[in-house]
Amino acid sequence: MGTTQLETAPEPKYWHLKTVLSDALDTEFAVGEILPNERDLAARFGVARATLRQALEQLELEGRLQRRRGVGTTVAPPRLGVAVDPARHTWPGAAGDDWQPVAASETDEVPAAVARLLESAPGETVHVVRRSRVSAGQPVAAELLYVRTDTVPDCVDAAAVAPDGHAHAVLRALQALDLDGQDRTVELGSARAEDARQLDRLPGSPVLVVTTRYVSRGRTAAVAVSTYRADTCRLTFGERTAQPVLAG
Amino acid sequence: MGTTQLETAPEPKYWHLKTVLSDALDTEFAVGEILPNERDLAARFGVARATLRQALEQLELEGRLQRRRGVGTTVAPPRLGVAVDPARHTWPGAAGDDWQPVAASETDEVPAAVARLLESAPGETVHVVRRSRVSAGQPVAAELLYVRTDTVPDCVDAAAVAPDGHAHAVLRALQALDLDGQDRTVELGSARAEDARQLDRLPGSPVLVVTTRYVSRGRTAAVAVSTYRADTCRLTFGERTAQPVLAG
Repeated sequence: MGTTQLETAPEPKYWHLKTVLSDALDTEFAVGEILPNERDLAARFGVARATLRQALEQLELEGRLQRRRGVGTTVAPPRLGVAVDPARHTWPGAAGDDWQPVAASETDEVPAAVARLLESAPGETVHVVRRSRVSAGQPVAAELLYVRTDTVPDCVDAAAVAPDGHAHAVLRALQALDLDGQDRTVELGSARAEDARQLDRLPGSPVLVVTTRYVSRGRTAAVAVSTYRADTCRLTFGERTAQPVLAG
Repeated sequence: MGTTQLETAPEPKYWHLKTVLSDALDTEFAVGEILPNERDLAARFGVARATLRQALEQLELEGRLQRRRGVGTTVAPPRLGVAVDPARHTWPGAAGDDWQPVAASETDEVPAAVARLLESAPGETVHVVRRSRVSAGQPVAAELLYVRTDTVPDCVDAAAVAPDGHAHAVLRALQALDLDGQDRTVELGSARAEDARQLDRLPGSPVLVVTTRYVSRGRTAAVAVSTYRADTCRLTFGERTAQPVLAG
């Protein structure tokens, strides 16, 4: 990665630097390789560290670089396609579900946006199940699944049992209900402390937040807030009819 | 928004500051209001400007704040739900499509990832149609739609006509084909210069990139790369059966 004369470029410096760095990543670095430190990189390209940092941030947003705790900045592998399929019409915890329950409790601390979707009253207690999704050996997503207690009335005493039993009791109770429909939204967010820990990321890292609403008997029975690593994941939405072709 | 003692908080300073600022946005600021400048805010909360900036960046990722060119940092309205519905099984340009063609051309500069999906040969020429999506009066997304020339052979001479005619000729030709299936991916990206201009954002702003593959006669006929503003948009994926309930 030789020095490059950036002074004469008409674009913003960091933008041109990003292109130069991107080419270098393709040709001179291997996936997983650690980049030289910022000071050395800035010196090599003759740019200020602020400029370098801007370019590195862009490349991180585009999934080309990863900042890893205690490791530094490494060349990212291609993003992993993770299926988030609205056509799959099942409750969380159904057979074949990719998610594993981690813990569960009853809580009256429901984020305002979730309370609106659940149509729960302020201070109303709901079940919350924390789940984790691992794909190709990596943690890809963390989830909080909020379930109205009146939806699964047989679970109200479940909080007394072991945390693991509570999660399974809630998930099992959901399977017995009719699922009328579900919808999803995807938006950009920043990783909250506990999700970040679960995902092995720093708090505040960009994440893709998928909010799924499950409808039963004409009302919202459960809301899942799933936090996917934005650096390593591409969310895929497919149609069954297209899959034989698209898998090729 | 009074001073707050942050020195004793056990979390990272910017994290606590983010919570304090977030509460202030709820209670003391109106949507669209311009925040005081960074120096004043940093002084008021007794934090370094770097700390303040980290907190502001988090709030921007979470959609609470918007940085607007030539205006400053303003309190963001709730994100706009924009339907990206894989159940809608139609070609781009079908009746009821929310997108407007802006321009079209033939190009042999196809990004590597798109060329892989299109299974086009290096240097092969394809049609590219630039489109724009406006929702609630705001530009929400910019798109480049790549169409194999052999998919719409009657359009090969269209480049000779007016740019607008070219776009419409390609879109019209697609409607005549069978659409076997489509799939989508959603991932985080950063706005490229021309998309940023179209979206009234700065280059490099975080965006949600939706890549849609359209399959006809057993192969990929077209690929759309749609760039949504991540600050103002929530992408929604719904099921028709659920909509009467979920609209309420």
